[in-house]
Amino acid sequence: MKIKGTHYRSVWLAEDGCTVEVLDQTKLPFELAVIQLTSLPLAATAIKDMWIRGAPLIGAVAAYGVALAMKQDASDKNLQHAYDTLVITRPTAINLKWALDRICPQLHALPEADRQTAAYRIASEIADEDVELCKSIGRNGLDIIRKIAASKPKGERVNILTHCNAGWLATVDWGTALSPVYMAHEEGIDVHVWVDETRPRNQGGLTAFELGSHGVAHTLIADNAGGHLMQHGEVDMCIVGTDRTTARGDVCNKIGTYLKALAAKANNVPFYVALPSPTIDFTVYDGIKEIPIEERSGEEQSHVYGIDATGKRNWVNTAPEGTVCGNFAFDVTPAELITGLITERGVCQANESALRALFPEYN
Amino acid sequence: MKIKGTHYRSVWLAEDGCTVEVLDQTKLPFELAVIQLTSLPLAATAIKDMWIRGAPLIGAVAAYGVALAMKQDASDKNLQHAYDTLVITRPTAINLKWALDRICPQLHALPEADRQTAAYRIASEIADEDVELCKSIGRNGLDIIRKIAASKPKGERVNILTHCNAGWLATVDWGTALSPVYMAHEEGIDVHVWVDETRPRNQGGLTAFELGSHGVAHTLIADNAGGHLMQHGEVDMCIVGTDRTTARGDVCNKIGTYLKALAAKANNVPFYVALPSPTIDFTVYDGIKEIPIEERSGEEQSHVYGIDATGKRNWVNTAPEGTVCGNFAFDVTPAELITGLITERGVCQANESALRALFPEYN
Repeated sequence: MKIKGTHYRSVWLAEDGCTVEVLDQTKLPFELAVIQLTSLPLAATAIKDMWIRGAPLIGAVAAYGVALAMKQDASDKNLQHAYDTLVITRPTAINLKWALDRICPQLHALPEADRQTAAYRIASEIADEDVELCKSIGRNGLDIIRKIAASKPKGERVNILTHCNAGWLATVDWGTALSPVYMAHEEGIDVHVWVDETRPRNQGGLTAFELGSHGVAHTLIADNAGGHLMQHGEVDMCIVGTDRTTARGDVCNKIGTYLKALAAKANNVPFYVALPSPTIDFTVYDGIKEIPIEERSGEEQSHVYGIDATGKRNWVNTAPEGTVCGNFAFDVTPAELITGLITERGVCQANESALRALFPEYN
Repeated sequence: MKIKGTHYRSVWLAEDGCTVEVLDQTKLPFELAVIQLTSLPLAATAIKDMWIRGAPLIGAVAAYGVALAMKQDASDKNLQHAYDTLVITRPTAINLKWALDRICPQLHALPEADRQTAAYRIASEIADEDVELCKSIGRNGLDIIRKIAASKPKGERVNILTHCNAGWLATVDWGTALSPVYMAHEEGIDVHVWVDETRPRNQGGLTAFELGSHGVAHTLIADNAGGHLMQHGEVDMCIVGTDRTTARGDVCNKIGTYLKALAAKANNVPFYVALPSPTIDFTVYDGIKEIPIEERSGEEQSHVYGIDATGKRNWVNTAPEGTVCGNFAFDVTPAELITGLITERGVCQANESALRALFPEYN
């Protein structure tokens, strides 16, 4: 997607064909900075210290991390070292292990001399495939937006509410939840996005940055506002991403998603979840009972980054001194609140038979 | 209520018997500072610039403002001037006009020489009556908490979720939604409060300050977290305040209240609203259709106050530069989501016949 007219992916190769470049997401949404990853340790740090985030992007950067290792030393020993180093950088990102399990055995089967070239090729394939996956999700979601646009009086914008950031910054390009939005915008549909701030980590700022940079109309709102907007007909549909979808269609996503789904149901607003099929976990059925919810540091709740009057990024404590803060990272939206799951293969209902029909290979 | 062992009200008379003292709520929850109001203009500024806030407290301070005016000049002309000055300080606070309409005509009927003493007496009555009103609400809500406590296994705390600040800082003492909580705490019931941060203005910080200062266990959470907590049995009841209650029991309160009420209904968590009867507006029926919702400055959404690393209070912009922010101040929770209304006369169902039965004088 574009930033002020220039097309970006969230990861790409520098002109030398070897150096891996990424956007420094620790500085976003306040500053646009590019980091050059020139070695395995730097790639590992980029993932571990969240210079980049988002499961699909983590997978791509991990693959490029293996390529950087092969460039320096394509021995079996270093290949194993690259795998071991990268696989532990983030504990839960499913795409991380998936990408490493794909690239490393392929390289191991090759002569050392061929490994560097092959590694860059496979890493690029992984990145390109993610882009195609997101585009397919976008096309399938676009159909829904087209229908809503056609049903509205001429000249009225389509209002879409989203929570957290499931945009191109979390993938290689296009994003998941935001991909249909970008496609609708490209097609000339007048879309406007209500962007949930998404406390406590304020990922709504990333979404606002993405949309603003690409030229998509949007308004940043408190997480509290969505219900009121839906009561008053100001939301035509909700689209969110997901970290994990269960066999019966329960969706684990950023904390607060569930509250928006309840409001959508109560106000007859369609509630869609966009997901690449690898996030479906057919081993889990009841998301509320079976998925443990990560509790994170209270400091993420009490403290927030912002730009102060001097133009500097500052980290301030918004809570009274000594206040105990709770920080629950995700919640589970039960399948019955979800209008449809937008996957790369099409849109299906949020239930086990629909999911298994669309993805029969998991049966 | 107490701050580190010392009993406070939110407004009181200094030792000289004339100067009106209030807590500077613009500095809370970060700093405890007392402001001395020595004149009518200062009292008016205190209300207008929100040095103090909360409808009941505004009413009491307005009455004291009249007393300060009478101390300086008890003429008819100055009495009228005091009324005119104070009545326009806040546009929507119902208690403001109510307090002025009570004190000013009474003073007007008296000889000038008696007005100062009478003004202080009436202002004190207004303040004391608010305390009694809040205590009655507290006692009625306490019965509900007692029953919940009795129904829980021994040793398990009662978890109460609240949104915004409807505590003693918004009234003269005790508060509305928090009054039952304080009474339960005083009685030795093991209560713990989930405090919604309440974006965009973070009034959860005031609630956390109040509860922490008085010694009531609490945890500050993102507004997004309540649904997850209710799904997992971590909330025994919700209590919130209200700015306006309609004849059929719809409740207009801080933005986001509605989302919590939806989650409470979906998870069979009792959802109570605490209110002094003056906030019931029998002229309005359908809150969603009839109550216009105030839209405030987007800066309240983008910018936040906090204490930075140097210990200073700093105001930072958490949104990407130039982001359009929406700021809807209130929402309406339909009566059918409300378990009961806790008033000074008792707890009633949220419907017109129950409200009119409890307050027959409005029939």
